[in-house]
Amino acid sequence: MTEENKSTLTTMSRKELRELVRSQLQVLLERGDLQAAKTILVPVQPADIAEAIEGLPETMQVIAFRLLSKDEAIEVYEQLDSSVQQSLCEKFKRQEVIDIVDKMSPDDRARLFEELPAAVVRRLVSQLSPTERQTTALLLGYEAGTAGRIMTPEYISLKEHYTVGQSLERIRSLANVTETIYSLYVTDSDRQLTGILSLRDLVTAQLDQTIGEILNRDLVCVQTDTDQEEVVRIIQRYDFLAIPVVDSEQRLVGIITVDDVLDILQEETTEDIYALSGVQSEGDNYFQASLLTVARRRVIWLLILLLTNSVTGAILKMQQDLLQQVVALSFFIPLLTGTGGNVGAQSSTVVIRGMNTDEIRAMGPLQVIWREGLAGALLGTILGVLATVWATVFIVEGNVSIALSVGISLVAISILASVAGSALPFLFRTLGLDPALMSAPFITTVVDVLGVLIYFNLARLILQL
Amino acid sequence: MTEENKSTLTTMSRKELRELVRSQLQVLLERGDLQAAKTILVPVQPADIAEAIEGLPETMQVIAFRLLSKDEAIEVYEQLDSSVQQSLCEKFKRQEVIDIVDKMSPDDRARLFEELPAAVVRRLVSQLSPTERQTTALLLGYEAGTAGRIMTPEYISLKEHYTVGQSLERIRSLANVTETIYSLYVTDSDRQLTGILSLRDLVTAQLDQTIGEILNRDLVCVQTDTDQEEVVRIIQRYDFLAIPVVDSEQRLVGIITVDDVLDILQEETTEDIYALSGVQSEGDNYFQASLLTVARRRVIWLLILLLTNSVTGAILKMQQDLLQQVVALSFFIPLLTGTGGNVGAQSSTVVIRGMNTDEIRAMGPLQVIWREGLAGALLGTILGVLATVWATVFIVEGNVSIALSVGISLVAISILASVAGSALPFLFRTLGLDPALMSAPFITTVVDVLGVLIYFNLARLILQL
Repeated sequence: MTEENKSTLTTMSRKELRELVRSQLQVLLERGDLQAAKTILVPVQPADIAEAIEGLPETMQVIAFRLLSKDEAIEVYEQLDSSVQQSLCEKFKRQEVIDIVDKMSPDDRARLFEELPAAVVRRLVSQLSPTERQTTALLLGYEAGTAGRIMTPEYISLKEHYTVGQSLERIRSLANVTETIYSLYVTDSDRQLTGILSLRDLVTAQLDQTIGEILNRDLVCVQTDTDQEEVVRIIQRYDFLAIPVVDSEQRLVGIITVDDVLDILQEETTEDIYALSGVQSEGDNYFQASLLTVARRRVIWLLILLLTNSVTGAILKMQQDLLQQVVALSFFIPLLTGTGGNVGAQSSTVVIRGMNTDEIRAMGPLQVIWREGLAGALLGTILGVLATVWATVFIVEGNVSIALSVGISLVAISILASVAGSALPFLFRTLGLDPALMSAPFITTVVDVLGVLIYFNLARLILQL
Repeated sequence: MTEENKSTLTTMSRKELRELVRSQLQVLLERGDLQAAKTILVPVQPADIAEAIEGLPETMQVIAFRLLSKDEAIEVYEQLDSSVQQSLCEKFKRQEVIDIVDKMSPDDRARLFEELPAAVVRRLVSQLSPTERQTTALLLGYEAGTAGRIMTPEYISLKEHYTVGQSLERIRSLANVTETIYSLYVTDSDRQLTGILSLRDLVTAQLDQTIGEILNRDLVCVQTDTDQEEVVRIIQRYDFLAIPVVDSEQRLVGIITVDDVLDILQEETTEDIYALSGVQSEGDNYFQASLLTVARRRVIWLLILLLTNSVTGAILKMQQDLLQQVVALSFFIPLLTGTGGNVGAQSSTVVIRGMNTDEIRAMGPLQVIWREGLAGALLGTILGVLATVWATVFIVEGNVSIALSVGISLVAISILASVAGSALPFLFRTLGLDPALMSAPFITTVVDVLGVLIYFNLARLILQL
């Protein structure tokens, strides 16, 4: 739209309009109503938004800028003069601004903050140190654990019309300021990624060939919101040294290198391993944490277990009459709950690990659960027979009824545990919850409570009490 | 020694001597007495050994060659004419030979097979495909899980007197046959590694500089027998793309690249995670294994647990009189063994993970155990108070003595479990056993058996029975 068109839409002077928008924005931002602030900017011209933003108090400028849609953002950014662009970058680092954004829920941020235009991201992140990038990542709109959060802007991009010789010259000049020179990225005039090549390709090519002739157009790249675990899987599958990160319009915004992937893999693994034993991981060194932190990270899972065991205890109390008559039944409680818990843990461990490494891919959930159920039946039968013999000979001295109750319960509990252990991770994944964190407490509850119920009801039946 | 010296040592003709050695060797190798075969070769001249080896049946030639000491091996190898050298390489691949070596225990192999000379390794492994290398690794003398087993011979080596321009030309010509061209290795005339440089260093240098001027002499490398987990740690710590592997004389024999390290890390992690739940890992895809394999990998740990629980059951039986009088005591058995097992698992998990990631480095074992013991006491107190209140109100309805027995036992069991959970991994590591595989069964045994004993003795004391 030109200046003429705009003046037909309003009878206000442009100056009055800009002042109105500025004061509307300021009121709404002060009230924290970011949704409304975003809405009122929709019909306003980029040039007017730019002026309005420049008139806002410093901490509000960045927030207002982040409320713009992606298309608006690039236009407004271009309207700002370069000193204001520069000062906007500076403000991205300001703690008060980061604090405001940090208080928003991730959902709100995702709803309010659209992607930033690739040109702005490039400008912003290249001016930030890695640590600053870490802290301003929220403001950039990249959630923790996504590719956007771990990417670096220090890559070398080439154009298709460059010759190999020109490219080598460019690499030589950039080699000291870029993270890797071994993976090279080819973009068009729109910043869109059109191909990848390696320094190896370049070294083996003729100096007068053009990049367009030798680049690899078979792109493997990730989006800024791709989960970092997925990034690890892709780099691992393709044996890459680095992978490009693009926005939703295929514009190159950064790369992720294999050394960062190794660190992420280590961190994610620790998280998974800790989760299996009910220890919370916070990405730092456990052995440098204070005693209170250590206890805090472990107490939640123990409290859940206490609750579960309270239920089991209450069920045992309900069987008081039976236990009073046949005290020998209580000798086998640790055996039954212990074995059940372990069969369940084995099933859930292999399923959760299979999800994380993608080895489970080839099988559907039903197939996995069926197979684990069969394994549980097989293992339960082996254990049940052994336990029946052992109980008959050493513990109940010939009272085969009790021994049989124990043996049959072991089979039932093993099947129950392996089915629950393999089914719950799938259920939690479907519900969008982390299987590794959620499965263990539920499996213990199911196995302990149902296991004890099965045992006592079987015993009543077999002992005819 | 010259031909003259040797003839003074024996009155036999050289031909007779060679025939004698050949027939001695053949008899000993047929009897499988490799130690004796190794011994009789000690005083024999390399040239005679070479002739004797050539006269042996095909499958025995390689075995005899592998019995030579490193110094002898290089001399004998050089005495062989190049067609025999070539045929020796061929024989390294033969299945019968591999089978013989496979039957030897790793100790025997280590005792009998010295390192191969770097020149021979280079020649051998460069003629083998990666799969062949995998299968012949035993014969090369590299045990599973060591750097020698995962290294590749496809690297580029340079000499210090090369200019940057010459080096770039060499890289260009080798780029299609080598695994990486980004890490370059500089060796002297003795094959000893004297420095490393990256293609980045080369690209930013002047074409007429020599390699000697720009290489990095601050070497980080691993030995052929370095554990692969250590290789992962070093690559991770230094953010390397590849690491050189040298023999005991610092001669370069291969490199390990970061993409292989990612695969190893994944495999080792699966092993660790499986071990925590008592599932054996065999480095393949669990979801492609047969049902019987699945059951086999899980049954061992369940049988150990069955044994442990049998002991716990027997102890409960010994407390029969007490359980008969106060049946309510049995309600809390799952709570006590369950919580104990979990506190122990939490401690052992963080300690084992800390060992694997080296995060534990800064702390001595005693300091770690002390800290875990304190955490156990803190967690036990929280759980004990809650359990006492819960038991008093809901289960034993005012019988505070029983509730107190439960609460105090929980504190004692938590301390016991966290101390055992943190101490046992250190003990197993000191004994040269894998903490991840060994700790869990022992912790369960200690906690279950001692925990139940503590509980009943406390109850007798408090209830004055």
